[in-house]
Amino acid sequence: MAIAKETALVYCEKQFGLVDGKTAAALVRHSEIYTVVGVIDSLLAGKDAGEELDGEKSGIPIFANLDEALSRLPNIPDCYIYGKAPLEAYISPEERLLILEAIEKGMDIINGLHQFFSDDREFASMAAQCGIQIKDTRKPPQLKDLHVFTGKISDVKVPVIAILGTDCACGKMTTAVELNETLNNLGIKSVLVATGQTSLMQGARYGISIDALISQFVIGEIEHAVTQAFNHESPDIILVEGQSAVSHPAFMSSLGILKGSMPDGVILQHPPARKFRCDFPHLRMPTVESEIKLIEAISPARVMAIALSHEGLVDKEILHIIERYEQQFQLPTTDVLSSGCQKLVQALADNFPRLNHKITRNNLEKIPVLVPG
Amino acid sequence: MAIAKETALVYCEKQFGLVDGKTAAALVRHSEIYTVVGVIDSLLAGKDAGEELDGEKSGIPIFANLDEALSRLPNIPDCYIYGKAPLEAYISPEERLLILEAIEKGMDIINGLHQFFSDDREFASMAAQCGIQIKDTRKPPQLKDLHVFTGKISDVKVPVIAILGTDCACGKMTTAVELNETLNNLGIKSVLVATGQTSLMQGARYGISIDALISQFVIGEIEHAVTQAFNHESPDIILVEGQSAVSHPAFMSSLGILKGSMPDGVILQHPPARKFRCDFPHLRMPTVESEIKLIEAISPARVMAIALSHEGLVDKEILHIIERYEQQFQLPTTDVLSSGCQKLVQALADNFPRLNHKITRNNLEKIPVLVPG
Repeated sequence: MAIAKETALVYCEKQFGLVDGKTAAALVRHSEIYTVVGVIDSLLAGKDAGEELDGEKSGIPIFANLDEALSRLPNIPDCYIYGKAPLEAYISPEERLLILEAIEKGMDIINGLHQFFSDDREFASMAAQCGIQIKDTRKPPQLKDLHVFTGKISDVKVPVIAILGTDCACGKMTTAVELNETLNNLGIKSVLVATGQTSLMQGARYGISIDALISQFVIGEIEHAVTQAFNHESPDIILVEGQSAVSHPAFMSSLGILKGSMPDGVILQHPPARKFRCDFPHLRMPTVESEIKLIEAISPARVMAIALSHEGLVDKEILHIIERYEQQFQLPTTDVLSSGCQKLVQALADNFPRLNHKITRNNLEKIPVLVPG
Repeated sequence: MAIAKETALVYCEKQFGLVDGKTAAALVRHSEIYTVVGVIDSLLAGKDAGEELDGEKSGIPIFANLDEALSRLPNIPDCYIYGKAPLEAYISPEERLLILEAIEKGMDIINGLHQFFSDDREFASMAAQCGIQIKDTRKPPQLKDLHVFTGKISDVKVPVIAILGTDCACGKMTTAVELNETLNNLGIKSVLVATGQTSLMQGARYGISIDALISQFVIGEIEHAVTQAFNHESPDIILVEGQSAVSHPAFMSSLGILKGSMPDGVILQHPPARKFRCDFPHLRMPTVESEIKLIEAISPARVMAIALSHEGLVDKEILHIIERYEQQFQLPTTDVLSSGCQKLVQALADNFPRLNHKITRNNLEKIPVLVPG
């Protein structure tokens, strides 16, 4: 059942293509609920968003500001999406004015920040006046609707695979979305459980933005989302989007994901060229080796494949690193954006006999193998 | 500077002495801000709270209900403390009526639940009418006042010791409070950083109830509390109260404590007689061995001593287990309630030369060594 998508303008001033602009990037790449008609970033005005991001034209223009976007687009878009994910929780005074202007123009406001726009008196009153909706993707359910851990996760009888990473904003969600799509195209029913605001904006039907939850309920809410996906969809496999990194000194979402989803396997995402952690320029990146050791010390699940981010690397370098990692870790390694998901699917087939049954050689050959360069 | 304590009546119906009544138990044992004048628990009416808890008379009577308490106490207490810490976040209709009655009688309401009484319209309006205060100990600061991790924890130049455990409600806080007091009595300036509502109610000046925080800010708030304690108090040592267990499938607070406080050493609390996790009768307890392994896999800190809870054990059994653990783990082991803190202080002296300087043999002999039985 196809649902008509809403048109959306994505605000990402000075951050498009950078780590804090990852929400905008993800929406340009993929969304089941929004058709992105433009991005706002004055530093890249006039360029094509897809080309800027992945070197391929997307037909999505980048505008210098809201006024330019509204004057050049044929219609006022349905939605104005705040597409940045900064470490700070608050918007600037200039950004506030733009949001008020978007409300005045009749656009629904979609927000993934910790600062909830629907709780902002000025926004809420203007929204009521203009008859538009404010959707705070990160806003958690009410206390009475939150779940604590019960152990019912052990009733989930299909493979649960967590896509974890060595850092924030390193491609976990992209890998999860691509793998999910590839599996479904092969006739393997795969459900992606979202754990962040961006994949919820992209249209994931199960999951919750966990970093905005009261900490006591994080594990229970993840367990609940995975069991809901299992009970309602009868899938062959469940993929769980990771957050930050188990080793990250500042965050613990990935630990919650390991506890709440009790995965049967882990795919580890890593940006080999990154030297320091995203948003923490004084914190060195961990090694793939130490991250695998840590994950496997905490969880009975094994890391079964490595997915790379090509950030800061040319195709030749990525291919070289893939070869080196496969030798060093004896784990299938790929970069889904440049080389596709075939190795990940093969790793799933090798590890889970019941999936193997469905993933025949015939099927596997249907997966497009991308040849970088 | 001694501050006059407020008198308090602690509600703990059907749970006093049990795991979900741990808030009441802690307040009967120790509080720097409240003088507990009575406990409400109809199952134990007429008994002495201290005797019920630890076998020693405290002069704190247990009443059958609020009416009996108010009719038998010489004055209406300053505060009514909701002293249960159940897994569910909500109070029952009967409990609601009692709170309204306490407000009517002019008592301030102290609450450690996730359900904030100050946000409850009926409570708030009645409180305003009666001129009393409602204090929700777990209520987090406003979003704008919350801290993310910065790394400034590495500027803390005194030993930071986390008191972790193998389960919830197994005596971590008791050990932390006793050790903190012992150290201060020896002239070692020790500051206890609280991480739960109970130790905040007991009067800890640094810390925050972390399980009620938005998950993204847990680590940063712990880091902030520890650095505040370091900067404001110039202590010789900082103790950090643990929560639940690193291994606990349902909770991740202890992981946040390891990340946020970056301890230099860990004291591990364990109830040897407990077979299943508190509030989770289908989850087996971990072993001390597996918990130590897990803690040391995640954190560079070493477990340097074991503290036991005598729950379900007679003194002879505890002594036997202490002997066995010391042999098996080669770690100083004690039960602070029956055998005192001397071994823990000695372990600190052995591990931290700068503390050793202050902890002379002379000092150590001042610590009362309790002889069980």
